[in-house]
Amino acid sequence: MIIGIIGIGLIGGSLAISLKESGLAEQIIGMDASQANLDKAVRRRLIDDDLPLEAGIRLADVIILATPMDAMLDLLPDLLDMVRKDQTVLDVGSTKQTLLDTVVDHPNRGRFVACHPMAGTEFSGPEAAIPHLFEGKTCVIVDAEDSDQDAVDTAKQVFGTVGMRFTHLERNAHDLHCAYVSHISHIASFALALTVLEKEKDEQRIFELASSGFSSTVRLAKSSPDMWVPIFRQNRDHVLDVLDEHIEQLSRFRTQLIKRDFDGFYERIRRANQIEKILK
Amino acid sequence: MIIGIIGIGLIGGSLAISLKESGLAEQIIGMDASQANLDKAVRRRLIDDDLPLEAGIRLADVIILATPMDAMLDLLPDLLDMVRKDQTVLDVGSTKQTLLDTVVDHPNRGRFVACHPMAGTEFSGPEAAIPHLFEGKTCVIVDAEDSDQDAVDTAKQVFGTVGMRFTHLERNAHDLHCAYVSHISHIASFALALTVLEKEKDEQRIFELASSGFSSTVRLAKSSPDMWVPIFRQNRDHVLDVLDEHIEQLSRFRTQLIKRDFDGFYERIRRANQIEKILK
Repeated sequence: MIIGIIGIGLIGGSLAISLKESGLAEQIIGMDASQANLDKAVRRRLIDDDLPLEAGIRLADVIILATPMDAMLDLLPDLLDMVRKDQTVLDVGSTKQTLLDTVVDHPNRGRFVACHPMAGTEFSGPEAAIPHLFEGKTCVIVDAEDSDQDAVDTAKQVFGTVGMRFTHLERNAHDLHCAYVSHISHIASFALALTVLEKEKDEQRIFELASSGFSSTVRLAKSSPDMWVPIFRQNRDHVLDVLDEHIEQLSRFRTQLIKRDFDGFYERIRRANQIEKILK
Repeated sequence: MIIGIIGIGLIGGSLAISLKESGLAEQIIGMDASQANLDKAVRRRLIDDDLPLEAGIRLADVIILATPMDAMLDLLPDLLDMVRKDQTVLDVGSTKQTLLDTVVDHPNRGRFVACHPMAGTEFSGPEAAIPHLFEGKTCVIVDAEDSDQDAVDTAKQVFGTVGMRFTHLERNAHDLHCAYVSHISHIASFALALTVLEKEKDEQRIFELASSGFSSTVRLAKSSPDMWVPIFRQNRDHVLDVLDEHIEQLSRFRTQLIKRDFDGFYERIRRANQIEKILK
């Protein structure tokens, strides 16, 4: 199978490694708006060849869209204009409603399968690509009933090969759940980094004193705005809703501190501890 | 050297492992308000013997106070009443101002060295004790000039043996810095867990969709209120100050979302990214 990947960053590059390693991809073609990224990807042997967009799309059996979300909005309708019945287009985006709205009436909609492999790190670019990124993680397939059955089967073959399990969601539900379990974590982490940078002017002290707890909470604050701003733009309403709730929860801790209501504080930590039943 | 540890939980138990392993401790005596904890600690071979408080204190060359912070406030003055000139008392507490205020005029103040080994996990109890917890981490020695020189040397021997490096702070500065780089992370994580538990009623969905990013941000929300409420109580004013700043930073992201000011949002993420220069 020839697999074309548009956007050779953390996700595209990591997929390239695992799809090649598994033997599913006999050839990986990289396409990217940045020639520097493509050159890096070739040097790291993430891809077999780089090609201009149209040439790469003509050649590939499966085309994986792995750019930031804003670029996907422009690229997906053009891709579907060009796609043949024997080809499948997949994406790896973190929001779905806006993207799927752009192709809802497209005659080739059936060739596209909206996928969200729930995996990543705080790093970006081809240099951040790593093996085994997807193993044991969940891939959400969104609005599968709008895709042709053989295209969904191909999507499952691609993400199954790299070790993912599957779940299905409708697009609005997907965006809502992701606001809760992913997008808010990033905003909280960005805000925490800004808080510490604002309050703690002594950077050497942060370095000396930062415990592993602080590092893990603030890890996501290293994430790229090129990736995340489009996600927050496209999922604005759900993100606002969950951000309001988060500020409310913090404000309650604040009120409990002001009132010295430490029994109440204790009870709310006990409730927060219940997250351990849900997470591994 | 005979080392007595009061409070055999995550920190006390992990110290017991490393001090014994290093050969510095020929005997580790465990003391704890909970006989069940002591029994577990003996079964796990964390300690050589368990003894009642007074008997253990009489026997030990070095006494390490590793209980929650509230219990330390009661125990430390009593310990200093009993301590001999050939003994050293250390603590491992996360706040210092309130604790040190309780013994500021004690005639045996010099035998006590206020220490804060900046290491831990989200787990607690003797079953959470692990080897190598302290290696490469920082131990803050607070108000060292109020301690006898030989007692400070002993403290450095104990924490140096388990692989820590040292920094010195005055007690108010310690509590302030710890509010920034440790305590606020925990409140942010507790609030994030409560946000998700409140908004996402479908626990199976959290389990399926939770990415590694969410898990790392919310990891600290598993931490015990028995440890953390006393810290927030004793460091209330600094924690309130930094919590206000954190809510302010989140509120600015909220305003930017409402106004669709995504250029401003982008700029603030770029600023947050600077945390990567400070953290490893």
